[in-house]
Amino acid sequence: MKRISLGMVGGGAGAFIGAVHRIAARMDDRFELVAGALSSDPARAAASAEELGLARSYDSFEDMAQQESLREDGIQAVAIVTPNHLHAAPAIAFLNAGIHVICDKPLTATAEDAAAIAAAAKASTARFFLTHNYSALPMVREARAMVADGAIGDLRLVQAEYLQGWLADDIAGTNKQADWRTDPARAGAGAIGDIGTHAWQLAAFVTGQTPSEISAELSSMVPGRRVDDDARVALRYASGAKGGLWVSQVAVGAGNELRLRIFGTKGSLEWAQEDSERLIYAPKDKPRQILTRVQDRSQSYRTPPGHPEGYLEGFANLYKDIADVIQGDEAVAARLPGLTDGLSGMAFIAAARESSDADGAWTKVKTA
Amino acid sequence: MKRISLGMVGGGAGAFIGAVHRIAARMDDRFELVAGALSSDPARAAASAEELGLARSYDSFEDMAQQESLREDGIQAVAIVTPNHLHAAPAIAFLNAGIHVICDKPLTATAEDAAAIAAAAKASTARFFLTHNYSALPMVREARAMVADGAIGDLRLVQAEYLQGWLADDIAGTNKQADWRTDPARAGAGAIGDIGTHAWQLAAFVTGQTPSEISAELSSMVPGRRVDDDARVALRYASGAKGGLWVSQVAVGAGNELRLRIFGTKGSLEWAQEDSERLIYAPKDKPRQILTRVQDRSQSYRTPPGHPEGYLEGFANLYKDIADVIQGDEAVAARLPGLTDGLSGMAFIAAARESSDADGAWTKVKTA
Amino acid sequence: MKRISLGMVGGGAGAFIGAVHRIAARMDDRFELVAGALSSDPARAAASAEELGLARSYDSFEDMAQQESLREDGIQAVAIVTPNHLHAAPAIAFLNAGIHVICDKPLTATAEDAAAIAAAAKASTARFFLTHNYSALPMVREARAMVADGAIGDLRLVQAEYLQGWLADDIAGTNKQADWRTDPARAGAGAIGDIGTHAWQLAAFVTGQTPSEISAELSSMVPGRRVDDDARVALRYASGAKGGLWVSQVAVGAGNELRLRIFGTKGSLEWAQEDSERLIYAPKDKPRQILTRVQDRSQSYRTPPGHPEGYLEGFANLYKDIADVIQGDEAVAARLPGLTDGLSGMAFIAAARESSDADGAWTKVKTA
Amino acid sequence: MKRISLGMVGGGAGAFIGAVHRIAARMDDRFELVAGALSSDPARAAASAEELGLARSYDSFEDMAQQESLREDGIQAVAIVTPNHLHAAPAIAFLNAGIHVICDKPLTATAEDAAAIAAAAKASTARFFLTHNYSALPMVREARAMVADGAIGDLRLVQAEYLQGWLADDIAGTNKQADWRTDPARAGAGAIGDIGTHAWQLAAFVTGQTPSEISAELSSMVPGRRVDDDARVALRYASGAKGGLWVSQVAVGAGNELRLRIFGTKGSLEWAQEDSERLIYAPKDKPRQILTRVQDRSQSYRTPPGHPEGYLEGFANLYKDIADVIQGDEAVAARLPGLTDGLSGMAFIAAARESSDADGAWTKVKTA
Repeated sequence: MKRISLGMVGGGAGAFIGAVHRIAARMDDRFELVAGALSSDPARAAASAEELGLARSYDSFEDMAQQESLREDGIQAVAIVTPNHLHAAPAIAFLNAGIHVICDKPLTATAEDAAAIAAAAKASTARFFLTHNYSALPMVREARAMVADGAIGDLRLVQAEYLQGWLADDIAGTNKQADWRTDPARAGAGAIGDIGTHAWQLAAFVTGQTPSEISAELSSMVPGRRVDDDARVALRYASGAKGGLWVSQVAVGAGNELRLRIFGTKGSLEWAQEDSERLIYAPKDKPRQILTRVQDRSQSYRTPPGHPEGYLEGFANLYKDIADVIQGDEAVAARLPGLTDGLSGMAFIAAARESSDADGAWTKVKTA
Repeated sequence: MKRISLGMVGGGAGAFIGAVHRIAARMDDRFELVAGALSSDPARAAASAEELGLARSYDSFEDMAQQESLREDGIQAVAIVTPNHLHAAPAIAFLNAGIHVICDKPLTATAEDAAAIAAAAKASTARFFLTHNYSALPMVREARAMVADGAIGDLRLVQAEYLQGWLADDIAGTNKQADWRTDPARAGAGAIGDIGTHAWQLAAFVTGQTPSEISAELSSMVPGRRVDDDARVALRYASGAKGGLWVSQVAVGAGNELRLRIFGTKGSLEWAQEDSERLIYAPKDKPRQILTRVQDRSQSYRTPPGHPEGYLEGFANLYKDIADVIQGDEAVAARLPGLTDGLSGMAFIAAARESSDADGAWTKVKTA
Repeated sequence: MKRISLGMVGGGAGAFIGAVHRIAARMDDRFELVAGALSSDPARAAASAEELGLARSYDSFEDMAQQESLREDGIQAVAIVTPNHLHAAPAIAFLNAGIHVICDKPLTATAEDAAAIAAAAKASTARFFLTHNYSALPMVREARAMVADGAIGDLRLVQAEYLQGWLADDIAGTNKQADWRTDPARAGAGAIGDIGTHAWQLAAFVTGQTPSEISAELSSMVPGRRVDDDARVALRYASGAKGGLWVSQVAVGAGNELRLRIFGTKGSLEWAQEDSERLIYAPKDKPRQILTRVQDRSQSYRTPPGHPEGYLEGFANLYKDIADVIQGDEAVAARLPGLTDGLSGMAFIAAARESSDADGAWTKVKTA
Repeated sequence: MKRISLGMVGGGAGAFIGAVHRIAARMDDRFELVAGALSSDPARAAASAEELGLARSYDSFEDMAQQESLREDGIQAVAIVTPNHLHAAPAIAFLNAGIHVICDKPLTATAEDAAAIAAAAKASTARFFLTHNYSALPMVREARAMVADGAIGDLRLVQAEYLQGWLADDIAGTNKQADWRTDPARAGAGAIGDIGTHAWQLAAFVTGQTPSEISAELSSMVPGRRVDDDARVALRYASGAKGGLWVSQVAVGAGNELRLRIFGTKGSLEWAQEDSERLIYAPKDKPRQILTRVQDRSQSYRTPPGHPEGYLEGFANLYKDIADVIQGDEAVAARLPGLTDGLSGMAFIAAARESSDADGAWTKVKTA
């Protein structure tokens, strides 16, 4: 099968998520990374491109979008792995150039940018994908399928958490990742944006429902920090279900404790990212079950159950499905996160802030 | 050592918590149950007393309080194990009679009753104990000692949960426990009172802090239920710490998932009732530790680590300490829950209701 | 219901297992401890008896057996909680006196003693119970019932382990428990007797099968130790099943890791003492299940699932059933460990030693 | 950095482990797969090669070895992913051609083949690597480093297990993997070879010691099966340490339960493949610790702790290190499994069979 030619914006030397995207694209050999605007610093961009063996390096994403769209062998898709405030401009440029966009989350740092991407996507023939990677893990997909099949009955309760401890101190000066993620100008939001959007998307992906209004308490626990590092959000669903979302980056001892618990009239499900290959299912009045991967429900996974796949394979599952969609198979498109997820995440951030600023007043979440 | 003669109000045939108190009182052989007013139905009271081999059975707690106080070999303490709305009258009667009171939680069903008990306790020479049993489990006490010793630094985050699933359906008609616990007149409150007060007391016991204001969302998920069966409460502490408390009795699949997580500037602690002999401690930037009982920190436990003690032993720890206090050893009094815990729990219930009625408005919690 | 009057041999001040038996006997209020020969030192026996409030203290078990059998209100049963080499003489004396015997495990320190007990039991109208306490835990009983019901099909594989770490160093001089347990004269055997018999009995209790021949490797890992502190035993069953039994007292870090795994043609079961309220069941080609207590299969347990019972409650379950049997209810007798278990344990110890001495040669296990 | 050109023998359509090797080689972009003799059936080889986009497809590995060694751009290394009995011939051919060999485990199906590979490796300028993938997982490497650093003191006890349940029934006729793995001619051995060698190598890799003699019991639990599907092996080390190794493919419910427990005079370590990112460390008389990845001990891993890497990443770690060695960095060579591991595994299989045939007689294990 012919590999899809891929470009990348951002992800030069020292970047974290760019390397993850590259591994994910490579995992199943469906993409070939051939072009990049890996850094806003041209020299560094060129050095990184050479290090990675890219065929074509550009000084700017604008050049890249223009020139690649003119080449016969130009890239078919581009991965955007820059900080949040630098998502919109390249996304729009490539959408305008008819090149598919694979964008890291959250969508953008501002509502204006989000709207601009939405407009560009609407006008483009190209597709827009947002890499909410956790939703591509096998047992998360299984949970979603089970909810859709009625395994838990009517949804009553949701609890979504994402706890990290790495920002328990002020390390912005010494840690590149911390630096931009705690800068309001570049990140747009703190924990609520960086990991809150993951928890928000995960809950919606699995339950098939999005809260209609929320009450939020955003906090900055570390003195001097300019963005939130802890957020508690109460959730109300139009269906009558209730829920909570709690994310923190000052939860000392936590690595990446993304965890979802949902309870319905007939059963409940529990899943945790750090033990991602197990899904706990409690049908009412019956013993709990420890579900693991079932190969025949999804032939796409690479190893049998009991040989754990993890974080990188989740990303790779997205890339694999994206490849299928780009090459014409629409069957998997429904499970791929995209613009709707991105806009919902931005609406969540906005409502959380509005509510928190109003001392937790219940606030409607805009729908896309 | 001479055993303390004990009486009991409530706890006749078919009652759950009365039997638990009796086992707890017997476990370490410090009490002898000699008298009872086990039921408001005299015939049933007498039959239950005979079944249990009690020396003296009374038709009413009033008679019991009066007559026992006149006997030379009268009871020194009484356990009150009636439904919540029937705590105050006997508690006051025995306090007035100079007999120590060991009362099941929550304190009462109404604020008025709580105030009346407080007044009686103040006027009495006898003591008042409230059986918040979970706070007497070894690793909970260890957690409290560690927090006091500075193991987690300054408190930042608290998450207390108590999830049950047994009331996921309307079973009031067929289950005696469910019947009174979902009746506003007898229970006073639903999940917020029955298990919410446990979570509230546990968090306060371990952290040494009580929230100053809360924002609550009480729900009744089961159609027709007249009390709350799910409650989410956001917590603000005067110290700047933030927290959440979530209790539910419709969490299908949950047995008694009381769980506390606390995070400070230097470390975190996590404990769960269903795995009560382990305490997870994460000192900042070091590996997590699985703490178990250390015999020399508390000689009082009955078995070496690795031979689990559980729910009944927690209750028995309370009774053992109460025996020590009654017999003159004040050293353990500080760790025993009592009137302050009871009043704090009532204030919590009241504030939670007030906040929930005001659409989650932040509401001050009265201090005792 | 009338309480059964109970005596005790051994279990004076400082003893561990005597206190456990007393709590177990007290837990459900079916026994009243009235007499004791608590120590071979008469002064200490008397002091311990007074401390415990016993009605009658004896200088020797011989006196106790004789005199109690003559009293109208004499004890109906006696608990023998002395070191292993002191089980036989009192057991025989009380059996001869027509008083039921509740004996701690292993049966004895020598084969001769075991045979003598067996003869006395045969000749007596009284019963003999052996306190293999773990087999009375709810989920162990559940496992046994499931195997009998065919839940795992035909048995293929057994793995029984009991790991402790407390004897990783030579502490005989400073630890009373270690002192007699590592003395060949008093203990008879080391780990193989102290905890090996537990693992052996547990496997037999659950599977309903006893190995027909074994190959053993007994080791003394601590320099100077005169008994085995680690034992590995391969098992062959007449049915064709195979297994392993591994016990150790030098497994640093282990508390009381008694664990049983059994695999059949249709499913498997896994249980661990330190998490005793859960039983993992894997039916073939279906998800694993986490089984917990089911109240209606056994009304006798004291708390609902999710409120853990533990080590003491296991012992108490034995005492409760023993009380039922003594008072005429034979229904539960089949699940109570007794002489057959004791003799099987002695045969196991003997075969293990014989095999180990013969460099692991496969050795038949005598049947009672 | 220039990618290493890689060839592959075996691994055509439908093969399992070939695909795993390809992902592993691709993960860190250090290899480029350019040539293959993917099947002994030339047409199928060609079709598979086209499907994978290989530059050069060969009808036989002999042709491939010869022609690639003549090309200037010939492959530098070859991955051999055929069934066990087809390892030796290609391995020797490529070693003779001066091309590095990356061979799947176990080394071969017969001792003769193993000796022949050893001779060829000795005579060759090329290197021989054996993909014992589990030993490349981060926490396994951490365990090895800790043992070497003295964290557990002197080794006393080892328990290595690898339990699978997928061969609980006779599925050879319908499952390609089962078919050759249960055929003595192609596999050489059953569970003892397929997974026993993994457990054997893992224990040796971590402890730094190899047993000097063993006593084994090999069984075939499934009627008609011609190879062992369950093996229990007792281990004696020259140092005085003792151990056990248990592998099974009829352990219903088990996925890939590779688990290692080791106990020394000062501490113990426990690791399980299905939870591979955690290592439990119990220093004597201190709380257990849950160790996770530490980035600065090994910069090579791709994600921060808390974002699980798994089975594929373990394989990829091998490929990454192999690339380093091939490109001249000897620093990591010591941790890479190779011929010594392979020969040790063959000696283990031979000794296990000899012992089992002699009714478990203790049998010396030949050293390479």
